Amino acid sequence: MPGIPFLPFSILQGILGVLCVGLTGFWGQHWLGGFAWDGSSEMFNWHPVLMVTGMLVLYGSAALVYRVPFSWERPKLPWKLLHAALTLVAFILVILGLVAVFEFHNKKKIPNMYSLHSWLGLTAVLLFSCQWIMGFASFLLPWAPIWLRALYKPIHVFFGSAILSLVLAACISGINEKLFFRLTNSTTPYSKLPAEAWFANFLGMLILIYGLLVLWALALPAWKRPDVNSQDIQEPLLQEAR
Amino acid sequence: MPGIPFLPFSILQGILGVLCVGLTGFWGQHWLGGFAWDGSSEMFNWHPVLMVTGMLVLYGSAALVYRVPFSWERPKLPWKLLHAALTLVAFILVILGLVAVFEFHNKKKIPNMYSLHSWLGLTAVLLFSCQWIMGFASFLLPWAPIWLRALYKPIHVFFGSAILSLVLAACISGINEKLFFRLTNSTTPYSKLPAEAWFANFLGMLILIYGLLVLWALALPAWKRPDVNSQDIQEPLLQEAR
Repeated sequence: MPGIPFLPFSILQGILGVLCVGLTGFWGQHWLGGFAWDGSSEMFNWHPVLMVTGMLVLYGSAALVYRVPFSWERPKLPWKLLHAALTLVAFILVILGLVAVFEFHNKKKIPNMYSLHSWLGLTAVLLFSCQWIMGFASFLLPWAPIWLRALYKPIHVFFGSAILSLVLAACISGINEKLFFRLTNSTTPYSKLPAEAWFANFLGMLILIYGLLVLWALALPAWKRPDVNSQDIQEPLLQEAR
Repeated sequence: MPGIPFLPFSILQGILGVLCVGLTGFWGQHWLGGFAWDGSSEMFNWHPVLMVTGMLVLYGSAALVYRVPFSWERPKLPWKLLHAALTLVAFILVILGLVAVFEFHNKKKIPNMYSLHSWLGLTAVLLFSCQWIMGFASFLLPWAPIWLRALYKPIHVFFGSAILSLVLAACISGINEKLFFRLTNSTTPYSKLPAEAWFANFLGMLILIYGLLVLWALALPAWKRPDVNSQDIQEPLLQEAR
């Protein structure tokens, strides 16, 4: 048994996750002018909401699926499918989040992909898509060779956390640059910390706390599925259900 | 023996680390106007150099000390002292890096600590200082109680990687905001990707690669000191040398 119970932790993470998404939505609605899907700046406002929902909260929740203690009883397959489904929904939201910013840029004739935030964010999305495809091919396809599964498992686990680190850096740099865009010519500039700046800085710190707690839960040895290094990982998982 | 040899990895990391510091210095010298220590914008230029050197490269190197295979032979104490010394030098550079930006802000009447980058960066530095003091008190003081060492060891290890994740986010958001400051009113704005933007974006991605490789090396089970969960960690280490 873990020293710290997983259930209270997951309730806390659930609350934090809802707060991250809700506050990002509130920022969009209250300060950034609301939401639309028409290439306007209101379309851009979907970008942070969809990215925080998909790439941070759903992705983080999907990574924690195998830490649920009652998932440790066999069969493992339903939990694999839940993990794949959550990350797939996350991935769809992330693609919509990219569409939101590209459409806005294109309509406003703003160049795409110039800032370090965009380079890093796209790197995280590309790694995430590789992670999903490789995970599907290795852990769900019944004809995946055992050597591939054994070789890829630690890489998949490492990149799970590494991509989350990139996501944190992308969220922080994204919020930071949005505040500079928004408040540079404002009557109360960012440097005077108007209410919006306090709010969005606080949101950034909350996102960090959420992400670090996920990384911590993933690293905690007592919360790792006991079969993590057992024969189980070397079996094609769709065959397990037979 | 690890599947991947540590020596070539550490040579690669050494080269990448020198490149991160060297390119940050080159950015300061070639594009940002050089270096000074007089409250001018040239004083600010020490901030990225000192932070990348201390908080990324020296910190990352210090974290990897226990992954050096020939450190695994006893006594462990010299390696503990090397780890403490490297992190102490890193900490001194980080403090100087903070002085560089605060002095610059104060002289130019720019408010301190308003951006999300600054909130995150200061959080990383505060956690780093707690980490150093707690590490010293728990692992080097011979009268540190065994229960404290056993309790604190996994926390110290986790925060070692977690702080590095924060540092990556701080570096990315810092470079990103500096490029917006520098290039917003330039004849070639950031969005047109002038040479400086390419250079600094590339530097940001290099910093990410360096940091992710350190996180990967720290997570690799085969590279962990074999005694990581043995009696060794529960002994007051200064007593080991007796």
